[in-house]
Amino acid sequence: MRDVMITGIGSTAFGRHEGRSVQSLAVEAANAAIERAGLDREDIGALYLGNFVAGPLSGQEVLAGMVGDELGLTGIPCTKVEGACASGGIAFRHAVMAVRAGFCDAAVVVGTEKMTHASGAAVTQALNCAMDNQSDGPSGLTFPGLFGLAWRVYAARYGLTRDEVSAVIIKNKRNGLKNPLAQMGAELDADLIRQSQPIADPLQLYDCCPVSDGAAALVVVAADRARAGSDLPIRVRATAQASGPARISGHEDLCSYKTTRIAAGRAFEEARVAARDIDVAELHDCFSMAEIIHSEDLGLAPRGQGAKWAAEGRTMVGGDIAINASGGLLSKGHPVGATGVGQIYEVVQQLRGQHANQVPGARLGLTQNVGGAGVACTVSILERTDA
Amino acid sequence: MRDVMITGIGSTAFGRHEGRSVQSLAVEAANAAIERAGLDREDIGALYLGNFVAGPLSGQEVLAGMVGDELGLTGIPCTKVEGACASGGIAFRHAVMAVRAGFCDAAVVVGTEKMTHASGAAVTQALNCAMDNQSDGPSGLTFPGLFGLAWRVYAARYGLTRDEVSAVIIKNKRNGLKNPLAQMGAELDADLIRQSQPIADPLQLYDCCPVSDGAAALVVVAADRARAGSDLPIRVRATAQASGPARISGHEDLCSYKTTRIAAGRAFEEARVAARDIDVAELHDCFSMAEIIHSEDLGLAPRGQGAKWAAEGRTMVGGDIAINASGGLLSKGHPVGATGVGQIYEVVQQLRGQHANQVPGARLGLTQNVGGAGVACTVSILERTDA
Repeated sequence: MRDVMITGIGSTAFGRHEGRSVQSLAVEAANAAIERAGLDREDIGALYLGNFVAGPLSGQEVLAGMVGDELGLTGIPCTKVEGACASGGIAFRHAVMAVRAGFCDAAVVVGTEKMTHASGAAVTQALNCAMDNQSDGPSGLTFPGLFGLAWRVYAARYGLTRDEVSAVIIKNKRNGLKNPLAQMGAELDADLIRQSQPIADPLQLYDCCPVSDGAAALVVVAADRARAGSDLPIRVRATAQASGPARISGHEDLCSYKTTRIAAGRAFEEARVAARDIDVAELHDCFSMAEIIHSEDLGLAPRGQGAKWAAEGRTMVGGDIAINASGGLLSKGHPVGATGVGQIYEVVQQLRGQHANQVPGARLGLTQNVGGAGVACTVSILERTDA
Repeated sequence: MRDVMITGIGSTAFGRHEGRSVQSLAVEAANAAIERAGLDREDIGALYLGNFVAGPLSGQEVLAGMVGDELGLTGIPCTKVEGACASGGIAFRHAVMAVRAGFCDAAVVVGTEKMTHASGAAVTQALNCAMDNQSDGPSGLTFPGLFGLAWRVYAARYGLTRDEVSAVIIKNKRNGLKNPLAQMGAELDADLIRQSQPIADPLQLYDCCPVSDGAAALVVVAADRARAGSDLPIRVRATAQASGPARISGHEDLCSYKTTRIAAGRAFEEARVAARDIDVAELHDCFSMAEIIHSEDLGLAPRGQGAKWAAEGRTMVGGDIAINASGGLLSKGHPVGATGVGQIYEVVQQLRGQHANQVPGARLGLTQNVGGAGVACTVSILERTDA
């Protein structure tokens, strides 16, 4: 199989895009990525699009074909994939597979979502499509409730204070201040977080990522076709995807996601690297607790130590491992279908040494994108390969 | 790249499945396919699921992971793809690609849809997500209206009578009578059709496929791993996918779908066969006019002659080319995400010589699955390879 490189990248800001359609955001990001990729549109052989809630919130499906058409890519296979919040990561993996296997030499990946125009109730109802509604619907559980439960279990098992969890939020909100694409960077402190509105006890407002619009896009190319251009091609060392149950009763442990562990295991094996080799990681921190859980599942922090590592500053830029230097979902925002693609966008910028919140000397980066309560997970490992 | 065979196949009946969930239909079909495939579940390395409207009609997404979990396939990548009514064909193509390229040795494909529990208005609204709502929404056009327009254009250009169009319906409804999975086989005549309720002039009730529930599934396996079992493996000679605009203004011609022509061209080239070599074809006859248009775009009937060929009996079992021997969407039903997989199920049965409406000596079969107004199309070519 062939080596695959990411050449062009593009992204809208994440946040509120009033009056824009979900497809126009995708087209904007993808056009930017294609223009930076240094190839002709005729060289692009496939498009993969990640989206989750355009059906219920915008009354629009078939986005892959529509976006391909607007990009002038008519005729090629354009495919929408859906795995809730992991839709973007799944789209990336499939574009990489298509190029790796030789089905085409270059492919476009785009993730897009438009949410802020809908009512809070409509957004909650749409997001709940990521739960197993037959098994878990009757309980009234929503995603904030689920991460509230995880917090309780984690606290009972390992010990956990409100301020340790807040350290994740303070870090990511501060990181977001440096990211021009971020929806809501902020300078917070433990008191402000403690005073914020309760959402699903013990979760409070700042523990939850915002509702966002946005799109991000990438061009992936066979290594031997990546032309020398102004933007450094970044190598895809691995991309892995795992699925598991959506129902809560299918989880062995609320504080560890089996799909993350499986996908990470496969990605590290494929890339022939270990967690300790990673310089920069973008994790799926839809809630503060999620970053803590994921950092442990990926082996970036020791089991039961994820929150303490954050509190000790070990996951900051300049710490042992820079986690969510972009601001993460908590601060950059979470336009669901775009998130997994946006994570890769951020890591590519880090590995190029061009990030606004740069991790010095970053050469190996990881992204982890989770759907629902772990029903799907993708883990990708990217590398800067110049000497 | 490796040769890929279809081994196990499974399907629910298409029609009304009261009280069933969209995922339980998928699990039933997939379990049947896996049991007939003669392999262990541990050998299955990927699952692709086609679905279109479970979000709006059942409040349930993440179906790929959920179905994989219920099948005992936890951990492998399970991916939902969406391309409106072509979702099933796209799922099949991706499973074939995964095995052909060697990402895994066996993959499950399942298409599923649950629609009959929803109101007519809810179904219409959900199906309209397959249109470009920004471009075409304001016109009030729906899919029956679109095929009504196509009828007018076709009639002006080639000449077309109500009774010629009715010949397609009479054939497919009669074929459906022989298919135990079909929702509404019937013995009709031109008078009955002429007296049926107008839908979108000149389209009448019998010109339109019914609203359906159902699921169909397949197991695809690398040829060197297909074990000798009771069911004859059927070879995948080609599977192609093309995308185009959803908006009506993007069509050069309402009586010919560019995406069909492109996908068919690629499939015939990959399979190194011509339209005249095909013994049995399942086409996407969501409306009577659709079968006429598709039969010409695929080269199965001469341009402008599709309706006349039907009226002359040339597309019946025993005619020049057996089109929709299963009853097609008009008679078998159209559980949207399942349709493309169900078409392959039917052709596999034909090539095995086991179909209830058997085309004598069929060795080469074709399926064509269309999304929206041609926004996506897949064409697959299957072959019986025993001597």
